[in-house]
Amino acid sequence: MFESNKAVWLEKAEACKPALHTETVRPVCGMPEHALRENASIVLDFGNHFVGRLTLRLRSEGSHPDAPAWLQFKFCENKRELNETLDGYKGWISKGWVQQEQAHVDVLPTVLVLPRRYAFRYVRIDVLALSNKYSLVVEDAYADATTSADDSLVKPLQGEAWENSIDRVARRTLRSCMQDVFEDGPKRDRRMWLGDLRLQALANSVTYRSFDLVKRCLYLFAYASNAEGRIPACLFTEPRVEGDDTYMFDYSLFFIPTLLNYGQASGDTETMRDLLPLALHQLTLAEERFDADTQLIRDSNQLGWCFVDWNLELNKQCSAHAIWLYCAQAALKMSEDSTLKALVETRKNAMLSNWYDSDRHLFVSGGDGQISWASQVWAVLAGAVTGEDARACLDAAAACPNALGMVTPYMMHHYVEALCLVGRRQQARQVIRNYWGAMVNSGADTFWELFNPADPDESPYGSPIVNSYCHAWSCTPTWFLRSGILQNKQPDHELT
Amino acid sequence: MFESNKAVWLEKAEACKPALHTETVRPVCGMPEHALRENASIVLDFGNHFVGRLTLRLRSEGSHPDAPAWLQFKFCENKRELNETLDGYKGWISKGWVQQEQAHVDVLPTVLVLPRRYAFRYVRIDVLALSNKYSLVVEDAYADATTSADDSLVKPLQGEAWENSIDRVARRTLRSCMQDVFEDGPKRDRRMWLGDLRLQALANSVTYRSFDLVKRCLYLFAYASNAEGRIPACLFTEPRVEGDDTYMFDYSLFFIPTLLNYGQASGDTETMRDLLPLALHQLTLAEERFDADTQLIRDSNQLGWCFVDWNLELNKQCSAHAIWLYCAQAALKMSEDSTLKALVETRKNAMLSNWYDSDRHLFVSGGDGQISWASQVWAVLAGAVTGEDARACLDAAAACPNALGMVTPYMMHHYVEALCLVGRRQQARQVIRNYWGAMVNSGADTFWELFNPADPDESPYGSPIVNSYCHAWSCTPTWFLRSGILQNKQPDHELT
Repeated sequence: MFESNKAVWLEKAEACKPALHTETVRPVCGMPEHALRENASIVLDFGNHFVGRLTLRLRSEGSHPDAPAWLQFKFCENKRELNETLDGYKGWISKGWVQQEQAHVDVLPTVLVLPRRYAFRYVRIDVLALSNKYSLVVEDAYADATTSADDSLVKPLQGEAWENSIDRVARRTLRSCMQDVFEDGPKRDRRMWLGDLRLQALANSVTYRSFDLVKRCLYLFAYASNAEGRIPACLFTEPRVEGDDTYMFDYSLFFIPTLLNYGQASGDTETMRDLLPLALHQLTLAEERFDADTQLIRDSNQLGWCFVDWNLELNKQCSAHAIWLYCAQAALKMSEDSTLKALVETRKNAMLSNWYDSDRHLFVSGGDGQISWASQVWAVLAGAVTGEDARACLDAAAACPNALGMVTPYMMHHYVEALCLVGRRQQARQVIRNYWGAMVNSGADTFWELFNPADPDESPYGSPIVNSYCHAWSCTPTWFLRSGILQNKQPDHELT
Repeated sequence: MFESNKAVWLEKAEACKPALHTETVRPVCGMPEHALRENASIVLDFGNHFVGRLTLRLRSEGSHPDAPAWLQFKFCENKRELNETLDGYKGWISKGWVQQEQAHVDVLPTVLVLPRRYAFRYVRIDVLALSNKYSLVVEDAYADATTSADDSLVKPLQGEAWENSIDRVARRTLRSCMQDVFEDGPKRDRRMWLGDLRLQALANSVTYRSFDLVKRCLYLFAYASNAEGRIPACLFTEPRVEGDDTYMFDYSLFFIPTLLNYGQASGDTETMRDLLPLALHQLTLAEERFDADTQLIRDSNQLGWCFVDWNLELNKQCSAHAIWLYCAQAALKMSEDSTLKALVETRKNAMLSNWYDSDRHLFVSGGDGQISWASQVWAVLAGAVTGEDARACLDAAAACPNALGMVTPYMMHHYVEALCLVGRRQQARQVIRNYWGAMVNSGADTFWELFNPADPDESPYGSPIVNSYCHAWSCTPTWFLRSGILQNKQPDHELT
């Protein structure tokens, strides 16, 4: 489907390809004052998070080098990575993501340009081998750092100190992820995911306002839709644009609110009209998941069928149903459709009558009736409960110690959004201050993919060494702080 | 000294810089028939020893790669290197010499060109990381192999089968070492040593006859002589020509016979004349080592003051004295000098009267009167003993089980040369057949730096992983087999 549109869609995407701004940055500390011997180890600190390539100007001291210099590099976003090693790695995503290299230098002096792009604040350099006859002088080290974000377009936030700090780190996160596309994380996976794009586009709309980049990404996802018109969860741009063969219920549907938000923020109604049929088509495709009799989404055992949060214990039936409602209502804002409108009401009611425990004010999910924060948050965002009921639902979750928790800033974003929606703006501010603020207090230059205040070693991948510490979906505090959503006086279901 | 000549010497050296012939070679076996998964390990066998750069054409199979491919490469001259690792390396030369690399491939398909030059027959590739979603296809692998030797100029040897085999491996050794200069070993040290150059030039004179390359190397050593006119043991050509700060008594003096051999083989008397003053100056500098009263060279505890052989137990006083005699007599062939001639006789006699045990027909060396093969071989080559006495000397060494042995093909060369000199040509053939033939029988494609038939793990560097298996000083069987020296009927002190 949509095959006849694809050449034009790709063309439109490429026409919006941004220029990358390159900035040459040098370490603020860590440059060695003395020549290095074999087994020396230094840590260059670039003072902030950057995405780019490293160049070293090296020379020898002592006799003419009579053996190659053998160096190891570790690029670290977070100080903790400096001492992590791959020894005994048992994680289940590729250890190829660990930003670690080795290089032999045959001739000194030299200008050593490492060819790959890295995401880092710190660079650890270990001298694996020299010879006894010479030592190594690092005369200069610099990174050519790139981003397509233009800092000059963003006014500093005039808030409280903690707000300004969080805003700064949030913008830095978004900035480092803004390259040719909105990447999910410049360390890993270095590609565009729809779930991340939706939140990045919100943050972008109140900061860098690079609407062309959002437009480009929407067209890339449109181009990457498969033969049945399904939008993949993520896509690759190298060696050419290609959708991943990973499809997730929620991510495909999020094309709808992403398109809506883009159109509203940019005023580009032409793109909205152009891509609307594809957006609506995601709802059509989603129908296969619903039971025609109950009008409830069917549960699934398929790993990753719907993302919601990085919690393998989470039952996603209720959240997925609510996400459908959320996206269907976004669709209605772009396109009046009485049938869809009726279906939304039917499915809200089905959700309430089957999964809502009105005594406890809690939604349950799956055959075992699991109570989770995700279910409550998405029920509120979907408008399945509103006003006092919605506030009661969030309060009930807070009062339920067994409610399965939230593990990602991505899920926390939706929680904060739900708090705003029900008028709990002070609480929303407090959550931002506590949760994202704790990362800032831990020295974060950018916000992390994962943050569980109770378990700093938590990783969804079996080992923290592959965690990303600059992750798109964590950048939304700048949207909360700048969009006015925290200042609105009344509960509002029209906010996003 | 000689500073005013240096610009011209360097010019002459650079004018003789050879063109490198590049040949594209592919593995004869080891190319994987199936796509590789994480942890796969393959060994490409290029069928012979080559020096060059490796290119791989890689693509993925399965889903679009969602993580970098992380590869490790080991370039091996000898099969035994395939499974050697640097774990716990305790050798005393740099482990930077081990031909091992890592590379991350971000985008597939790709043409991966490893930028460094390696010496190898085998390339082991370990897939350190992929992801579960794709596997790696090695579509093509080839090396751009270089040498400045021209095989088309060399006629095959029409000898016995064992002679032809040894000749082939010897020529391959020389060929791989012939690059911009005569290197000692293309794996390690990748630079020119005078002791190696002297033997390479001999082998070259009966094979590739690249006399311009010898001329170039002589001028490079001349250019690299230090402020007092001393020729260094080795020199570097990158980033510019520079002598090492290592000086060895024997290697400096070997400039003399190298120049003589070059002039005789090439007929280039102009170069001989041009460099003769510098050559003779090495004798002047050597005087500092001699005791004016005894006319004996003084012993030294300085490590590496004179090379002779890779044997740390060897006392080198007697050999060094004999090497001076050997080089002084080469000088006399280029330049009549009655004073020098008389000094040679004086020092021959001093050697005989102080270190020669005429009853046992053995030379002793050092304060402890050490008996070594090296002392006997060099005494014979120096003409300190001749004819029956010389034969008796070599026989006595063979009959002396405590005589300190020879460990390098370099020292073995001098033994074979001594046998030829005393007319023991059949025995010389047998030594070549036994010693170099044993390397061929062990699968050698090129001759090794070190070969102790009694101890295959022997290394002068504390670990065999840094040994070189294509080493210039081991290439001389082709000279013995092709020069006619093994066929001469009479003992001859004029052979080299």
